[in-house]
Order: sequence, then C-alpha cells, then structure tokens
Amino acid sequence: MFDISPLNCEFDDEIQHKIDDKTKPVGALGELEHLAKQLAQVLGKDKPQIIKPKLLVFAADHGIAASGVSIAPSEVTTQMVMNFINGGAAINVFCRQVGFELEVIDCGILQPLEGVEGIIDQRLGAGTAPIHLQAAMTLGAVKQGFEMARKRVEYHHQQGTNLLALGEMGIGNTSSAAAIMASIMKIKGADCVGRGTGIDAATLKRKQLLVEKALLIHEAELTDPLNILACLGGFEIVQMTGAMLAAAERKMLIVVDGFIATAAAMVAVQINKHVRDYMIFGHQSDERGHCLMMSHLQARPLLRLGMRLGEGTGAALALPIIQAAAGFYNEMASFSDAGIEI
Amino acid sequence: MFDISPLNCEFDDEIQHKIDDKTKPVGALGELEHLAKQLAQVLGKDKPQIIKPKLLVFAADHGIAASGVSIAPSEVTTQMVMNFINGGAAINVFCRQVGFELEVIDCGILQPLEGVEGIIDQRLGAGTAPIHLQAAMTLGAVKQGFEMARKRVEYHHQQGTNLLALGEMGIGNTSSAAAIMASIMKIKGADCVGRGTGIDAATLKRKQLLVEKALLIHEAELTDPLNILACLGGFEIVQMTGAMLAAAERKMLIVVDGFIATAAAMVAVQINKHVRDYMIFGHQSDERGHCLMMSHLQARPLLRLGMRLGEGTGAALALPIIQAAAGFYNEMASFSDAGIEI
Repeated sequence: MFDISPLNCEFDDEIQHKIDDKTKPVGALGELEHLAKQLAQVLGKDKPQIIKPKLLVFAADHGIAASGVSIAPSEVTTQMVMNFINGGAAINVFCRQVGFELEVIDCGILQPLEGVEGIIDQRLGAGTAPIHLQAAMTLGAVKQGFEMARKRVEYHHQQGTNLLALGEMGIGNTSSAAAIMASIMKIKGADCVGRGTGIDAATLKRKQLLVEKALLIHEAELTDPLNILACLGGFEIVQMTGAMLAAAERKMLIVVDGFIATAAAMVAVQINKHVRDYMIFGHQSDERGHCLMMSHLQARPLLRLGMRLGEGTGAALALPIIQAAAGFYNEMASFSDAGIEI
Repeated sequence: MFDISPLNCEFDDEIQHKIDDKTKPVGALGELEHLAKQLAQVLGKDKPQIIKPKLLVFAADHGIAASGVSIAPSEVTTQMVMNFINGGAAINVFCRQVGFELEVIDCGILQPLEGVEGIIDQRLGAGTAPIHLQAAMTLGAVKQGFEMARKRVEYHHQQGTNLLALGEMGIGNTSSAAAIMASIMKIKGADCVGRGTGIDAATLKRKQLLVEKALLIHEAELTDPLNILACLGGFEIVQMTGAMLAAAERKMLIVVDGFIATAAAMVAVQINKHVRDYMIFGHQSDERGHCLMMSHLQARPLLRLGMRLGEGTGAALALPIIQAAAGFYNEMASFSDAGIEI
C-alpha cells in the first residue's frame, strides 16, 4: 500500500565520524547525537536541514464519548477546533513560538464547520460509531482516510516541507487509542486505559469496561492493522496512520506526539515496519500506557514534561531540540577546525 | 552578603486560577504549569516575559588537572575558550538557535588571552592550586570573585536582562564540583565522582582518590560555604555562585546548567536559601552525581537528554521550554474567552 524505502545506512560511518570529530567528548551530546545521525540518514549526510516544518492537527469525534468516558462532551471537540482556528489553544502558542506552521484537519467532527476558513475538510463521517457496540467505521472509510492523508502529505511535500508533526483533538479518543494499543500489544485493555483529560475513578472503571467490551466483540476481526483501525479506530487516528506512512514514503521526518498519535504510529509500523525509521518521538506523555507504547516501539522520547494534552503539543516543543541536533551537526567546529588536540 | 527577597507569593491564587482557566484540562501542561507559576511569581503576574536572555560561560583552570583526572590537559580550556570566541562550539550553535546572547568570562584560565576581543576579564589567578594538596584559593579570592560576578550581573540587569543562564568550561572542574558536593551533602567523595569528559576506569579511580584526599586534608575548614569554595572551588565555580546570588538579589531568573553549575547552585543556596526560588534547572546531566544534586535541591530538570558537556548547553536548550511556559500563560485563551463549557 505504501512504498517506503529502508533507511539509507550507506554513509553511517562517515556520519558517525563527523559527529565524533566535533569539539566535544565522544557521546557528550547524548540523545542529540542519535538524533543528528537520524537526520543525516533521512535528509542527507552533508547538511541536513529542517525545511518548512508543519504541524497537522487531526480532529474527529468518537461514538464512545456518548457513554461518558471523558470529562467533556463531544461538543468540546468542535469548540477546541474553533479555538485552534482562532489561535487561542496551547498548540497555537507553541507553534508560533517554535516556528511550526499549523494546519487543522477535520477528519470527522460531529458537524462540519460551515463557512469557517482555515479548516481542511477531510471528513470521513460525523463521528465514529461507538466501538463497544459496533465497528467504528467500514474498511472502505479506512482506505479513504489513507488516501486523503496521502494527498495532503503530498501537498506539503510539494511545498518543500521535509518534517511533519502530527497531533490530534477528539473527545473520547484515548479510549480508541487504548483499545488499539491493547490489540497490537496483545495485552489487557484495562491496562492500557488511563485518565485521559483527568477522569475520576468511577469514570475510569467505566472506560476500562467499555474498552474491554470493544476488544471482546471485535476479537475475531482484530487480525490485521486495517481491520484494527476499522473496528477500534477514530477518523483522526486513521488519517494520522496514513499521513505517517505517506510521509515516510516521501522520506520526510515524522514527529509523533502523545498517546493517540503513538497509537497511530503503532498501526503504521504494523503496516510497514520501515516507517519507524522516519519517526521522532517528541514527548513522553503523562497518560498511562504511553510509556509501554514507547517500549514497544523502542522509542526514546526527546521530552518528558509530564504533559497530557495532545493537540501535538509534545511534538511542537520538541522542534527546537531537533533543530539543535541539525545545528550542531552542520555548524559545530571539528577538532582540526578549532586547532584542539586531545 | 546578598540581600535576596523571598518569593512574592501574594498572588499565588490569582496566578493558579489564570493557569487553571486556560483551555486545557487542569494540570495538562505538566511541568510547564509549575514553570509558568514561577515566572509569574518572579517576573510579575500580569505578563511575565523573558527579556534579553544572556548565557554566561565562566572559564577557569584547575591545579588538580595536572594530576590526570580528565581526558584532556589544561591547555584545552584555553583552546575551547578560543572556540567559543570563534563561534564553533556547541554552546555557540545552541545560543544562536534559541536566542541567547553568549558571553565568555575568563575567571582564571592558565594564561590570559592577550589581544583577543570578546572575553570578559574577571581573572582571579592563573588556575587554582591543586585541591588535594592545598586550598584552591584564598578567602579573599572568593570574595573578590563574588564582587566581580555581582558587577557583571548588575551590568546585564541594567541592560534590561531578566534571565541569566550559567555554564562553564574548565578541565578538571568535575573534580572540584564533586568535592564541593560531597562536602555539602556530607557523603563520600568517591560517590560524587563521575567520568566527566569520559575517563577510563583507572583514571576514575585516581580521580576518586584525589577528591577523597582533598576532602580529608581540608576537613577542619569545610564548615561554611565560603571556606568550602576557598578549599575546593574553582574560580569559575566561585563566580557562578556569586552570579546566582547577585541575579536573585535583582529578581532575575537563573537557569542552572549541569554538574558544575549545580555545585555552584548548592553553595549559593547554603549562603542564602532564597536564591533557590529564582532557579530553573535546565537539564539532568548524564554525569554521575547530578541526579543526587537534583534531589538535594528538590529540583526537577526540564530536560533529560543524556548530555554531559557543560558550557551551558543544557541551560541553552531549556530556553524554548521556558518561553513556552511564558507563552501559554500570556497568550492562551481562557474557557470563557473561547466559549467552551466543560
């Protein structure tokens, strides 16, 4: 479905030598050194640079939200989308600050926002069906979502963008992400469910039961990643999955945000393992389960700030770190440049 | 010696309400929320903003380096200072990227760099005496170092700067920092000694023995922070300590870098505990012992990137996070602004 090149490792020795020859003890820049190597592998060994970084927020609603799994009702998804459009949300502030251009994609919120400028229309429906009662969507919707996402990624690629960060908004989507996680990792749903926006113990219990129920009723179908998405997904999770695969197909870097975006990353890796090589993990979320996801993907998140907001906030704040990695690789003096002998 | 006001907590409720009323679940921005509160307490509750942030690198040499406690000889301190002046070091790259103005202060490297522009001369000598044989410096030198640092901080304060980040360069200075740490925390010197720039096991053993010896021969003197600095300090550690105290005196924020800067922070807190309220810890260093220092200071570092380079690199990379905290506090919409009801 997606034609992703394995990482080019031909120049690994040259890249590593360039990193080790910088005026610092070997390894002294820690994670930034691993990151610089990845940037050089993906964007080119001579002068890897982040060009026109974009952050895409995928928004959608979830049928399960009507059963009370969040502190907020589904209407808040639309209200937050309007907040994004008006520039007042956390992700707007962070994108302005670090230099991300922000794009908001309606993947299927309850109702389309007629006459509002600045929303990309990639609707797959008016919210998913409740996953604890039926499949979230058809397999056709999953494939349509992939195609829409691919087209949008291609648009950004044509603009010269070589780094995409992916975030989301959707009341109820931690339930969907937890179910996907459980299904891929083959662990209990209850162990993947966390407090999301900050639910109380009783709501947490209900959320756990509903996620377990979703896993049970779809058990026979959860045999491949597309069916997992159809049964348990959200429209935004489907499109993030497609966008990740399409970005890797174009050798673009992918910055993955928190719990929900990482669920999409897990599905993407199931579909084509090479996509993993193009991924950078921005932030270790405070949402229960994200830590396990990171282990599963052998990911080392750049930041651990205890955030649990989504929207792409954890990916946005990672951009300066990514740029610092490119910066030291491209600009730092070597020992011979600086006339230093150790 | 330093007249530092305790933090103004008069508006804490108002500040917390403003943070909680932003369009996000309560607490969902994690560490950024604690940070925003601190910024509002120190810089003012209405619109705290970072103005003209400066990063000061304090450089000096250490007598103990002649006994082989590092991968590099003392000459490398001077060579790295020249690298800073020429813009080729990691700290140059990071400062340019995140918007720190960089200043290099010669606190006492082996020889003054005659005719080189851009170095601030605050020399207290030509390297310290070897701490395992005698006191590093006189008490007079400590006091002179504090005065020099205070003058320089006053200069930056007059320019409008309200945030200072502090880093260092000095071959041998992890030995000095480890000895100071052991002395203040009253733990074994060997447990505070790490691999610094990346020494081998035999060198580590020697370094541990020398630090233990330093603690032993000065034992009777290590009763107050000024004498600790005189016996075990480095000229850069003295001036960082003074700069932190002087910055807090002027209600400026202090961004503390890694192991050596944190040793200075520990001494500063011993001298006047209120200085702690003005400190932000940029990065958890990979140097052994830094983690213990953080616990001692009840500090939560913003970044953990496995770096161990010094120069202020961990403080520099924290600036975008600090600005993000100010940004969300100042710019994010409240629930009523955005018309969202939860």
